[in-house]
This record gives sequence, structure tokens and C-alpha cells, in this order.
Amino acid sequence: MIYQNATKQELQEELELLRDRFEEYSILNLKLDMSRGKPAADQLTLSEGILKAVVEDSECITENGIDVRNYGGFDGIPEAKRLFSEILGVPADMLFVGGVSSLNMMYDAFARNMIFGAGEGMKPWGQGGIKFLCPCPGYDRHFGVSQIFGAELIPVPMTEKGPDMDLVEALVKDDETIKGMWCVPKYSNPTGVTFDEETVRRLVSMPTAAADFRIFWDNAYCIHDLYEDGDVLPEIFTIAREYGNEDRVYEFASLAKVTYCGGSVAVMATSKANLAYAKKIMAKQFICHDKVNQLRHARFFGGIEGLRAHMKKHAEILAPKFDCVIETFERSLAPHGVGKWSRPKGGYFISLDLPEGTAKRTHALCTQLGVVLTPAGATFPYGVDPMDSNLRIAPSFPTPEELRGAAEVLCLCARIATCEKLLAN
Amino acid sequence: MIYQNATKQELQEELELLRDRFEEYSILNLKLDMSRGKPAADQLTLSEGILKAVVEDSECITENGIDVRNYGGFDGIPEAKRLFSEILGVPADMLFVGGVSSLNMMYDAFARNMIFGAGEGMKPWGQGGIKFLCPCPGYDRHFGVSQIFGAELIPVPMTEKGPDMDLVEALVKDDETIKGMWCVPKYSNPTGVTFDEETVRRLVSMPTAAADFRIFWDNAYCIHDLYEDGDVLPEIFTIAREYGNEDRVYEFASLAKVTYCGGSVAVMATSKANLAYAKKIMAKQFICHDKVNQLRHARFFGGIEGLRAHMKKHAEILAPKFDCVIETFERSLAPHGVGKWSRPKGGYFISLDLPEGTAKRTHALCTQLGVVLTPAGATFPYGVDPMDSNLRIAPSFPTPEELRGAAEVLCLCARIATCEKLLAN
Repeated sequence: MIYQNATKQELQEELELLRDRFEEYSILNLKLDMSRGKPAADQLTLSEGILKAVVEDSECITENGIDVRNYGGFDGIPEAKRLFSEILGVPADMLFVGGVSSLNMMYDAFARNMIFGAGEGMKPWGQGGIKFLCPCPGYDRHFGVSQIFGAELIPVPMTEKGPDMDLVEALVKDDETIKGMWCVPKYSNPTGVTFDEETVRRLVSMPTAAADFRIFWDNAYCIHDLYEDGDVLPEIFTIAREYGNEDRVYEFASLAKVTYCGGSVAVMATSKANLAYAKKIMAKQFICHDKVNQLRHARFFGGIEGLRAHMKKHAEILAPKFDCVIETFERSLAPHGVGKWSRPKGGYFISLDLPEGTAKRTHALCTQLGVVLTPAGATFPYGVDPMDSNLRIAPSFPTPEELRGAAEVLCLCARIATCEKLLAN
Repeated sequence: MIYQNATKQELQEELELLRDRFEEYSILNLKLDMSRGKPAADQLTLSEGILKAVVEDSECITENGIDVRNYGGFDGIPEAKRLFSEILGVPADMLFVGGVSSLNMMYDAFARNMIFGAGEGMKPWGQGGIKFLCPCPGYDRHFGVSQIFGAELIPVPMTEKGPDMDLVEALVKDDETIKGMWCVPKYSNPTGVTFDEETVRRLVSMPTAAADFRIFWDNAYCIHDLYEDGDVLPEIFTIAREYGNEDRVYEFASLAKVTYCGGSVAVMATSKANLAYAKKIMAKQFICHDKVNQLRHARFFGGIEGLRAHMKKHAEILAPKFDCVIETFERSLAPHGVGKWSRPKGGYFISLDLPEGTAKRTHALCTQLGVVLTPAGATFPYGVDPMDSNLRIAPSFPTPEELRGAAEVLCLCARIATCEKLLAN
């Protein structure tokens, strides 16, 4: 039964059946978490070798003679730079290898621009009201960074090919206060969309009123394919170079979801001019990052091939979980015409668009049954989804059995919310 | 021969002798570094066990059930908090355990106050011209942080008991733009002075025109005694509490010179109000720090007793180096009335005050002979020592043999510079 086409009578009967099932679930006292893109225990186990990758003093010297245990190596050890260079397809001299958190590197880049300006002689962003473009549904932590710095968040809808570029171009063309834009260009959080070449090209070539417009290119899922035929993201600096706009881009990535979220290595890539400018400031901020851990990572993988083989093992664990959720949606939502969902080829999320005005209610019902989801609205600036439609599903952390249950609960709650909504109209 | 009392003739003859020795050294092509407080190789070796402290998946769970490999544990794992609580004598709920660099935590704390203000409803430091007190000779990297944020640096002379508190009190009493002060309260960099209780008490009780006055209490050498009878620094929050001024203090420390400068753990301690405020901002900056490494540190030491035993091993390596430099000064400088130097009971530096107007020349002569010292003036705001007198000696990194040579070279160069200066008068 397609709910949209059902009579009030049919919907009422359906709702009663669904509520009976809701009651059955409520006595199970479930405790399932699909709220954050958090690796599961068996994924962490894949990286046990990294704990043993550097265990002797004699292993602590880099190929260029740096003792990783001591000071020095401000911008990262060569082994780590090479690994990230291979991952991102960006020359090593455009990289700054940092500590454990790419989010921290993004926050720091934003803070630098707020206090010091985006480049030599440029006005600090903090000296005037600024705006930031937020493709949505998008990543709440990105929006949170720009929000805490006082930027006005401008939503830009995501399409199948990336953010709505007609809108982006129109916005940045004349408004000098729009200083930048968040992007998760591959397996976008949460839609799973990978930006196509035209989108990347338009982003780096479009005229911007702000000379200090900056794209925060969070390539978080650059190597996080779920299947053999993963998406291919064009390398942004290669294209930006054609237009002389390399300064427009800060790229970020990390090995958080490759080894350990609580102990990996992050990187920033940007133009040589931006990097030189940032380094002058960062030289006052710290002496070096954790180079022992950088070396652990480089040694553990050996190189890009080792890393790719490692990512296949993650995919073997993750893909069935994504499949399970999507199968459940197809079985339990599709027959009722409830919602649309992404079928990402990588990344950590499934984006579920429910009928307008039912996301919050669905979330609340799930919470009652012990299934924790990312709050409805979180994928939009200020946490407000104007359609109250989008939910972000993170299938990675629960076990497959838990996940099946959690997905069933989610479908049940979405159906209840949809019936309620239709009945109330 | 006391140079000050010598005739021009005597000085000229002495200078010729010294220059002959300078020539002898110049053909040795020395390459000795006494410029930074950098542990030597045998000190790093003391911590080899930390590389093996967490090498199995089964070892990755904290006492409160956090998997250190995954997200979570935003403000540090309990084991690490307990260790730092014991080190600093500060309750664990006043601590934020971070990443590898305490300098980074100081920079971040400064940046937070610049952008957001020092507390709820307070004006951001960045919205007006601010000044910062810099006890000197002091730590160049501290001055560098306040300088890059645009603060005017106000020098405050160090005494035997800490900064000149009469001056500090007079300055902060009426000037609302003085927002804070740098302190290395124990084994101060570079003087080796440990603040006495009266100084600590006056710092936390003095009236300040700025309600958002903050002391950056960099307790870098809190457990870094060279000898059995180390200095004792009063615990600042205990005293601040008496005056209701706990919000005035940010304390920082790290295990950089305990385990690895390139892979340790840092901490910030502050009032619960400050901590809650900072956490609200930091929650946007990162998800967690490297908890695997926090656990490595906690496991390796086991507790404060293990840590203290470890620090004794550092002292066994470091104390003879300090002794060697001081003996050389006593043998080669004292008989000529050249300079005064500290005899620190801990920390990483010896402060050498040469005759006025000779520090830069001494530094330049040392450089010619291949002995690298911290630049003359570096211990003062803006790198300018008004007396051109102070040199910071870092004896830790060279081997004992190298150190003997380097100290001899330094004495030789100081004597040449002194003779030149006296002859030029």
C-alpha cells in the first residue's frame, strides 16, 4: 500500500498495526547507535599491526635522518608526506602532515583566517561579518566550525553531481562577504554524492567577489570505497592550476577511518603560497606533531598498495552493512512509497529523505525504542531542516545483527510518522 | 686577571692570546648545538618501553570502558587525567588532556580569548589593543604567541623569587588592556628560578584592572629536578582558591621532556568555569585527541612513583651536563670576572648574563666556531635584550664530550667579546 494514495480508513488501520509492532519493540529495550560514522570493533582490529609498527628505538629514524621521538619535522616526516601524496594525488610539497584530527586542522585554518586573514596583507575574516556556503544535507561539524566563528551559514542544496553550482556561482559572484564553502567532495556526508568534474571545474574557475574566498575541501572519504567500482573524484588542484586558483583550496584528509579515529594522522594540502603563509603562523603554534605516530602509519602500510589492500578489508566489513540497511529500506519503505535514500559507493553514511515534516517525529520514535540516530536537522545549517525530511544513517558501528534490527525499527518509525502526518492533513 | 680591573695593555695582550686559541678552534670545524632544550639520544632511550606499552587490541580499553582507538574521550582518558592530577597536584576534574604539544594548548587558549573572549559574555581580546606581561629573560616561544596575536609585550624583570611583583602589581592595577602574563614558575626558562610562595600568592591575589586577566602558568618543568633536593613550587590553584581567583589561571604541562618531544601528551588545568567554557568551544574544534598515546603513557609509568623513578634517570644524564657547563664557567669565566650564571636545580637551561653589550658578539663568535646558541636577545620580548647581556644555554642535547668543548668555546668567545668591549670603551 502506497500511503500517499491510501484512504484515511486504510491509514488508520495501518497505523494501528504499526503501533502494535512499536509496542512489541518497546519491551525489547534496544540500545542501538546509528548516529555517528564510527568504525566497528572488527574494523579497528584490522589495524592491530600499527600498534607494533614502531616498538624499538632503532626503528625511530626517518629516511632523512629525523629522530621521530625528538623535536623537528614541523610539517611532517617524508614517509608520511609521501603516503598522503599518493592518497590525494597532490605533490608532497603542498602537504602539511599534522596530528590526529583533520577537523582540528580545518578549525585551525578557519581560525587563522579569522585572526590573520587568508593571506599576506588580507583583511582578517573576523573584522567583518562573513558568510559561508553550506551544501546540505551536509556535515554538522563543518557547519559548527563556521557557526562558532560567527559566520552566517548559507544553505546550498546538494544535487546528484555536487552542490547546486548555478546557485553557488550566483551567490559568490557579487557578495564579497561570502568567504568560503564547505565540501565533502567524495562520498559526501551524508548524501554519498561524489562531485563530478564539471562541478569541480566550476568551483575553482567561478568568479568570486571575495579575493579571499576559500573552499574547505574535506576529502574525508578519498579512499573509502565500499565496492570495486568506486567513484572517481577529479584532483582539484590540477584543475585549479588551469585557472590560477590554487590558493582557493584547502584540502583535508585523515587516516581516522583507516586506522584509528582515536589515534591516526591528518593532513592539509594547499597551494605553496597558502602553505608558506600558514606555516609562518603555525611555527608559533607548535614545534611538531606526533611524528612517532606518523612513522607508525607509514611503516604499517608501506605505501599506497598496502593502504588500498587495507581499505578492501574495511569494505568487506562495511559493504554488507550498507546493503542491509538499503535492503531493509527497499523491503519496508519502498512498498509504501515512504522516503528516498542514497545508495553510496563509499563513505560512511546513507541519506534518507522522508516525507516532508516527518523526520523529527521519526527520530523521536526511534529514540523511544532505543535506536539512536543523528538528530533530525543536524545535516542542515543551524540544525534546521526546512522540510523536516532528512535523516543521516550511519551503519558502520552496530554489528550486522544489531543493524538489521535498527533498520527495521527506523522503517517502522518512519512509517508511523508518515501515516500520522497523512492522517493529520 | 679580572678584566674589569686590567689595563688596556693587559687586555690587548690577553685578547691576542684568546684570538690565537680562537684560531685553533676554528680549524676543528666544530658542530655543536646548545640552542634548544632538546633531550639527548640516551634520554630518549629511557622511554623505549612506551613504544611497547600498548601493542595488542586487548590492551586498548580504558578502566572506564573507552576503546582508545575509536572516537570518544574528548577531554582525555581517566588514566591520563589521574597521572597529570598526581603530577600537578590538581584535581582531575580541572584537567583537559590533549595532544602532543602544550605550546599548541597555550596558543589555542590565547586564540580562544582573542576570538571569543576569556569567558561567557566577555569581550574578545582581539576587539581591542591588548598588552601582555613577559617576565624576562624568558621563553621566546611564549613571547612569540602573544606577539603574533598582536599583543604589546611588556617586559618584567625576573628576580631570584620570580617576576618583579612590585612592578607587576603596579602595571596590572590600572591598565585594563593588560590581559595576562606568561610564567614558567618552576625552573624558569632560562633563569632556573622557581617562584616562591609570596610571588604565587601575590600573582593570584593582586587586583587587576582587567576582569579577564589570565596567567599562562607553563609548568613545563614541574617534575624535572636535576638533584635530590629539588625546588618546591606552591600549587597555584590552592592559593588562588583562597582569593576566589581560580579563573585567573591556565596551567599547562606536558610529558614532552619525560618521554618524547615528538610523541607525548600535554595537559591544561584551569578552573571548572574556565574549563566548561573552553570545552564548549573545543567541542567544535576536534572530536578527541590521540587516546592511544595517552594510554601508552599511563600504562608505561603505572603512576606517579613510576614517573618519578623515570625522571631520576633523566637527572642522572642531565645533572652532569649542567655541572660540566657550570664548572667550565667557574674555571674559565669567574677568574676574569666575566659574567654571572644561574645554578638551577632543574629544568633545561642555564642563564648566562655577560657584561653589557657583549652577548650578541659572543653569540656571533660562537657561531663562527660552529657552536650554535639560542640567538642573543631571544629571551626578551621582540628579541631585543636592552642590555645585550643574556644568553640561554641548553646543555641537554650534546654528548658530555661535545658539551665540554662547546662550553670552553663559549667561555673563550665571551672573554674575547669582553676584552674587545673594554678596549673599545
